[in-house]
Amino acid sequence: MKLKSASYGRLSHNAKCSRCRAKAIISLPSHHANFCEDCFLVFFHKAVNRAMKKFPIGLDTPIMVAVSGGKDSLALWDVLADLGFTTKGIHIDLGIPNFSEASRSACEEFAKSRGLELSIYELKDLFGFSLPEIAKLKSSKVCSVCGTLKRQFLNRLALQEGFSVIATGHNLDDEASRLLGNTLRHRDAYLQKAYPFLPAGPGLVARMKPLFRLESEEIRIYCRVRGIKYFGDKCPFARGATSHILLEALQFIESQMPGTKRDFLFGFLDRQTPPQFEDALLGNCSVCGALSYQDTCSVCRLKDELKRKKEFLKDRGH
Amino acid sequence: MKLKSASYGRLSHNAKCSRCRAKAIISLPSHHANFCEDCFLVFFHKAVNRAMKKFPIGLDTPIMVAVSGGKDSLALWDVLADLGFTTKGIHIDLGIPNFSEASRSACEEFAKSRGLELSIYELKDLFGFSLPEIAKLKSSKVCSVCGTLKRQFLNRLALQEGFSVIATGHNLDDEASRLLGNTLRHRDAYLQKAYPFLPAGPGLVARMKPLFRLESEEIRIYCRVRGIKYFGDKCPFARGATSHILLEALQFIESQMPGTKRDFLFGFLDRQTPPQFEDALLGNCSVCGALSYQDTCSVCRLKDELKRKKEFLKDRGH
Repeated sequence: MKLKSASYGRLSHNAKCSRCRAKAIISLPSHHANFCEDCFLVFFHKAVNRAMKKFPIGLDTPIMVAVSGGKDSLALWDVLADLGFTTKGIHIDLGIPNFSEASRSACEEFAKSRGLELSIYELKDLFGFSLPEIAKLKSSKVCSVCGTLKRQFLNRLALQEGFSVIATGHNLDDEASRLLGNTLRHRDAYLQKAYPFLPAGPGLVARMKPLFRLESEEIRIYCRVRGIKYFGDKCPFARGATSHILLEALQFIESQMPGTKRDFLFGFLDRQTPPQFEDALLGNCSVCGALSYQDTCSVCRLKDELKRKKEFLKDRGH
Repeated sequence: MKLKSASYGRLSHNAKCSRCRAKAIISLPSHHANFCEDCFLVFFHKAVNRAMKKFPIGLDTPIMVAVSGGKDSLALWDVLADLGFTTKGIHIDLGIPNFSEASRSACEEFAKSRGLELSIYELKDLFGFSLPEIAKLKSSKVCSVCGTLKRQFLNRLALQEGFSVIATGHNLDDEASRLLGNTLRHRDAYLQKAYPFLPAGPGLVARMKPLFRLESEEIRIYCRVRGIKYFGDKCPFARGATSHILLEALQFIESQMPGTKRDFLFGFLDRQTPPQFEDALLGNCSVCGALSYQDTCSVCRLKDELKRKKEFLKDRGH
């Protein structure tokens, strides 16, 4: 598939590719560059390779790619497979009406079209509650709960399937806006862990974010160039999420002061030392055996809380 | 003068003052408080007193208050005088048509109404160029140049007039958005100096920001309650200034996540050690004698640059 017109940035009629001088169809203002389709892919691969060099993962390490069906995770899976890594997709179906069906089938169709292997699990089977059931029982926003659940189950499932590393589709915008949130609130513990690679340890697979150098918009272009049919809807439970607010503020600053997002994230990472596995601090959950700082892990505590709430509501005839 | 209606936040018809239970006319959502007029003044004084406690300045130290004619600096002058400090205002006329006349006369009228002393200087006399002349000769934005000039001349004039401390009207919004800018760009040297009190040294008067705990909107209410007639226009040369962009982004986050601005600034300051006077690093400018890290200070270098540009343009017949 060939892109017909520039989808990002303004491009003059006779703009030339910054790399090969052919006709440019993509403009990346924050890089002061224009690209033709082929050179854009070279640029994209370079950004992923540069990220991968930070991670102690060779071409011989099989990677489990966590896929939601959205543009980031499918682009990630596509580019890792294209760069020669052995990959397997993993998708957790959250059980959200309409949304989850579309997410799941985007993953399935992508896997089929590329001849790649995909494992699918359902949150309801793994945890006993689907996301809408959790949202109904919790009065607060479920974004952070959903994040915690996915993190723990992905780790457990990767171990079960014999993988030592999980890749997620977090991009530069995700990482920069999360960094902004943790900076504004002075969350020092989170700031120390804000690194695109977290090492493995006993009971813990490594986690990496190979797209952390690429902006959302660049990934959208990549999907168009590569013909990736992703599911573009936002999660209905994420409306008004803090991460969206922070990203909106950051995008506004970026539009007025191009390059700020990049400087902010990369300048921070340049000053960071890669985090180490903190085995001394971690024990095992007395219920499920997962790694935990407390006697019972946060997932088992949540499950217990939800069960009690459900019983309570049942007794009241709800 | 009495406020007729709430000018900030939404207030129900029968809202009570959080302090004295009288009818509230002011709502401060970020403090979860409503106030009547008198209790708002108590709140305002408390915030200034709390700031002043951080500064080694007693009631017996005369304070030079830098006034622009805007709401912040006139509120500052008003509250310091009201709290019993001996103050004198100082105003630098930048020579901007219409804008500077209005700024200057707001200062003069305020001083007259309160029976306070005011010194007025003109940038053209001090430096040889007015701000519009500088803007014409420089191709870039003049905000930082204007800041540098005011800082150096205020220091020099305060010394000449026998003061050991200058107070400026920087508020919580100014400080938080500047902190955001320096954080996003990782300007470590500026971050170390981001403190509301900078100590005196040989050739340098102390500088303090007694309004750093108060939001722009709170200062606006204070001016209304106290009947301060300030000049409300924005400087015509500051359009699109970085500080405005950062503040807009921060206000957006604050509107969605109240308290963020406050947490960000105060959390940062709690972790800071008050800066010390760095006499070992500073020399004197070989031209004007002002403190400088280089042989010639930035103001003298700027003057030289502008003179050369002016000559160059004259030769070209401009």
